[in-house]
Parts: sequence; C-alpha cells; structure tokens
Amino acid sequence: MALNISSPADFHVHLRQGSFSELITPHVRKGGFHLAYVMPNLKPPITTTDQALKYKADLQKIDSDVEYLMTLYLSPDLTPEEIRKASAAGIVGVKSYPRGVTTNSDGGIESYEAYYPVFEAMQEVDMVLNLHGEVPSDTKTNIHVLNAEVQFLPHLFKLHHAFPRLRIVLEHATTRAAIEAVKSCGPTVACTITAHHLALVVDDWAGQSWNFCKPVAKYPDDREALRSVIKEGHPRFFLGSDSAPHPPHTKSTSTPTHACAAGIYTSPILLPLVADLLHSFGALQNLVGFVSDFGRSFYRRPARDGKTVQLRKIEGGYLVEERYIQGQDELVPFWAGKRLNWKIVES
Amino acid sequence: MALNISSPADFHVHLRQGSFSELITPHVRKGGFHLAYVMPNLKPPITTTDQALKYKADLQKIDSDVEYLMTLYLSPDLTPEEIRKASAAGIVGVKSYPRGVTTNSDGGIESYEAYYPVFEAMQEVDMVLNLHGEVPSDTKTNIHVLNAEVQFLPHLFKLHHAFPRLRIVLEHATTRAAIEAVKSCGPTVACTITAHHLALVVDDWAGQSWNFCKPVAKYPDDREALRSVIKEGHPRFFLGSDSAPHPPHTKSTSTPTHACAAGIYTSPILLPLVADLLHSFGALQNLVGFVSDFGRSFYRRPARDGKTVQLRKIEGGYLVEERYIQGQDELVPFWAGKRLNWKIVES
Repeated sequence: MALNISSPADFHVHLRQGSFSELITPHVRKGGFHLAYVMPNLKPPITTTDQALKYKADLQKIDSDVEYLMTLYLSPDLTPEEIRKASAAGIVGVKSYPRGVTTNSDGGIESYEAYYPVFEAMQEVDMVLNLHGEVPSDTKTNIHVLNAEVQFLPHLFKLHHAFPRLRIVLEHATTRAAIEAVKSCGPTVACTITAHHLALVVDDWAGQSWNFCKPVAKYPDDREALRSVIKEGHPRFFLGSDSAPHPPHTKSTSTPTHACAAGIYTSPILLPLVADLLHSFGALQNLVGFVSDFGRSFYRRPARDGKTVQLRKIEGGYLVEERYIQGQDELVPFWAGKRLNWKIVES
Repeated sequence: MALNISSPADFHVHLRQGSFSELITPHVRKGGFHLAYVMPNLKPPITTTDQALKYKADLQKIDSDVEYLMTLYLSPDLTPEEIRKASAAGIVGVKSYPRGVTTNSDGGIESYEAYYPVFEAMQEVDMVLNLHGEVPSDTKTNIHVLNAEVQFLPHLFKLHHAFPRLRIVLEHATTRAAIEAVKSCGPTVACTITAHHLALVVDDWAGQSWNFCKPVAKYPDDREALRSVIKEGHPRFFLGSDSAPHPPHTKSTSTPTHACAAGIYTSPILLPLVADLLHSFGALQNLVGFVSDFGRSFYRRPARDGKTVQLRKIEGGYLVEERYIQGQDELVPFWAGKRLNWKIVES
C-alpha cells in the first residue's frame, strides 16, 4: 500500500541557529517536507526584515531544496513601515508570543491594542498573524497551563472582529474550545495542529519530560476534538509541527530547582508519524489535505514544482532512530525507539 | 517567636523497607513527628496481621520513640476473619489503592462491592478505611490525572452511605470538589491533606519531575480550597504527608520510554514546612489542630506523653539540606536548597 502526497508543507517549525541548525534543517526534507514556515524566536529574536532575510539565506545554505517562509517576532520595535518593507521582501507572517506581549504592559495580553497599527498595516499588505494562543499563568486568577489556551480565545475573537480581513492562524491548538472557536470564525482564521498533540494527553507528560511541551497536551476529550476536525477534513485546520529540538540533557534531567525544556522534536519523522496517527484514528483519507493542500491554500502557496513524496506501509513496522548526532550536537526525536508503520520511499 | 505543638502526628507516611527504611524512618522525628500512620504498599504488600506486626517491629528497631500505627493493603486475600485478628493485634486501618481494585474486576472501582463483607467487619471492630481516591485514567471515558479524584467521589459517597459507622479517610485530597465532598459527609468521614499539595499547582510539575506525585497537584483554585479548609480550622481535615521517598535517579531522569517516579519526600522537613506554608496563607493559628489535635481526635489517639515540639521563627530563614546520604542510599528532600523560616528547637 502506498500514498502519494504532493509537496508536503510544515506551517510551524523551529530551525534554530548555528551548528544546531545545521543538524536539524536537513531533517525538514528527511521528514518528508518541502516547505517550512519558520519561527522567529532566535536569540536575539528576528524582529527586522534584514534579520529575516539573513536567516533565510543561512537556512538555504544548509538545504536549498526547501521553501522557507519567514516570520518576524512581534515586539514593540515593529512598525507599520517595517511591515510594508517585510512584505515587499517576501516575509509572510508575524508571530506573537505571550511573553512578548506581557513584557509590554501590566495588563498582560490586553496590550494587543498597542499593536493595532501594526495589524492594520499587516491587513493592508496581506501578511499573516500567527498567534501563540495562551495567556500567562496566574495563580490569583486560576490561570494555569491547562486552561491558558481557553482563556486566550476571547483575544482571538477580538482581533478577528477588529481586523476581519487580517489572516490569523491560531497556532498549535490543543483544546476542543480552540477548535470550536476557529470553526466559528470567518475564512480568514485558520489553525495549525501538531503531530504530538494528536498523540498525547496530559497523562503522557505527567512525570515524563520528553512529552512536555507548551502548550501542554490536554485531556482525552480535547485530543478527540483535534482528531475529529481532521477526520472531518475541515480546510482551515492543517499541520504545523511546532517541532522544537532541545539538547537531550535539557529534556532528560530536571534538578529540584530547574524544570525541563518545553518542546518536542518531530521534524525527522514528521510525515510517517502523521500518517501513522491519522491512520490510527481513521483519517488517512485526509492526509493530503492536512499536510499539504489546506495549509497551502490558506497561505496561497500552491505546490509549484509537482514534487510528490511517496509513503509505503511497512509490514510489522520499523523502529524510529534513538538519536541523531553531528559534531557536538545530539538530538533525540519524539517516538525514539518506538515503531512506525509508514515510511518515506527514498527516491 | 516560638510555637509549641503537642506530639505532632503524620497520618499518612511511606517508610519503605531495608536500608532505605533505615535512612528515612528516623526522619519522622527529625521532621518533628511522634506518630506515623504507616502505608502498607511494600513489595510484597502488607496484607496480613503477621506481616504488619513484623514490619512494625522492624520500624521500632530503627526508632522506638515514634508511635507506628499500622495498616493492611486491601486485596482479595483480605477476609473478615483477618480483619478481626488485625484489630485485636492493634492494627488501625486498611488502605485501598485503585490498582488493587482494578486488578480485581473488569468494572474497575465498582468492585468495592466485592469487599463489602470486609468493610462490614471493619465497621464492627472500628477499623479505619483509608482511600486513595482516584479512578484509573481511561482515554475512552475522558478520565485523566486531573479529574481522577473528582470521578472517584461518587464511590466515597456510596461507601459512606452503605457503612455510615465505618470511619473513612479520603487520603491526600487535592481538589475543591473533594474538600466539599468530605465536608458534606457525616462525622465518620475525614480527609488528609499533604504539605506539598498546599504548596504546588499543576504548573509546578509541568516539566518538573521533582514536583510530580500522585495524585498530581491540581489548579490554583483547588489549592485555595485546601488552604481555606485549614484556615477555617475544620476538625475533619488534618495532615497526612504522603511523604514518599524515591532514589534521586528515578526522580531526576526520564528517558523517552520511562516516566519518573511519582512521589515527594517531605518527612525530614515536615513540621517546619507545614508551619511555613500555613504562615504564608494566614492559617498559623490552626497549626496545632492541623498537625496534631484533629487527626488524633479522629483516630482516637490522644497525645499520651505530653511531649511537645517547639518551632522557632528564624530571621532571614535557613536553607533546606540538598541531600541525605547513608551507605548506598541517597535522598533529596522536597524544598532542597530553598529557604524555610520555621525551625525545630533541638531539645
């Protein structure tokens, strides 16, 4: 049994910097993808057109066969002028992180209003706003990692109402409430879903730091909602892996005073993993839509070159590699040592 | 500033076996306590009177100055005859773990009914039933570590209704719903609260395995309910530390395929920690009730000897030890390297 997918696209990925980037950037294609929508949260963050173009050139030097769509990090430095410059230079989106917002005002995420001139310019030039949709935890108001996304949703509605033509992507949705919120919005609002949130629930990261990421995986009923919207083939829900590599020692050990790094690394096994997952919950018929067509359509990035990736079902499955090593850098992928059933046919 | 507490009692503690037990059993008194209500989940579990008496003798050999109240592990082997024998031998309670129950029937925790003859005998001889009040996680029915306790509460009500004279303790409550459930029951139902659940919320164990325990710490609003019932000085809510030591390597490292051990080790700092916590949320006036009088009253174990423990407030605080080592055994306490403000006055 074989599947052909035209030019798979990962609409949310972290490709890091330096030698680490040299190890992981080739994993985009290794994982079956031809397009990477690249997050800007480097050190320092990518806040200008010039930085983004420089970063894009760095990535192209590592692997020129991937189409990199670049983003800027929403911060007080970002101006409407810079937005117009970025758009003219082919930069596609602006990513908002909760921290970037809270740094800016005591009122926390309400301060989106301070960015309205930027959003206005984005709407004019048709750039995409990518939202990390969580509000900061606060014990006084009972906000915590499990309800941080649900508490964010009013901000999504408010932004969509204020900028109905602005294309907005709620990134890495994890809750039934978020799925329903995005569904209820107009055609300018879409949503990415990661592979790992289709696999995990809260019990899986309780005491298991390798499965710990932000937003955290939620309850079984939430996972069911993510799976259902894919089964349904809803065109505004598509893959963004949020693949986020961290050195193994920051994932595997936590001292009494330091927590583990948040992030799950799926890039090198992404397409087979997604195929396995969709197969497991009866949505394999929507694989092409979820990993290519829907996202490409929302982002207006049709597959240009007719490249297809073929997946073949392996009888009995095969084991995911335990680690990837290059120089001083080492990475352990999600699903390490476990079995996958779909494999990319090497061309 | 000093506080005098008459004969503090910890109504839920794990004292383990072998050399590990030799390291930790003296920590009961080190932590300020004169009574330990000892859990029976050894390998193999304590299921008979003879095993419990042998275990008690082992503990007395290590530290004879602590009063050990012994328990049996609820399992299909336990008979009404054994209950009568245990009671005559001074064994105080029977502990029910969810796993012990689910092993026994496909219907899971409903199989409590299979134990009704045992509960009947316990009610007759006035033994206490200690409930680990969680149902097993099940993705199909949306049961997970965050709602496992709330889902258990109907079983508490059913048992209390069927055996109104049976003294029942809901152990290590973590939710507002559990607090309200116990309050709504009659005087035969009480509840233990741990020190760490007064300190932690879900964000604290997300990616931080040293703060991972079962039941997991819940939401800020739940923690607020635990704190409030202590502030209120409700006599059916008292300390059971659930102090549960694990070797550091099982806490600090998780491989992609193995989760960390669940359990938090508070014994050696217990009384100062509880004083600090109660002080922090304005309940210090109820310290004596919470750590001694209320539990002793419910269990009918008045302080016999007039021993008191004195706590003194240390200006600027002092650091909790980073680790305890004895032979091959090593332990890292909760709060390691952090500051406490109350200290036991050495006599």
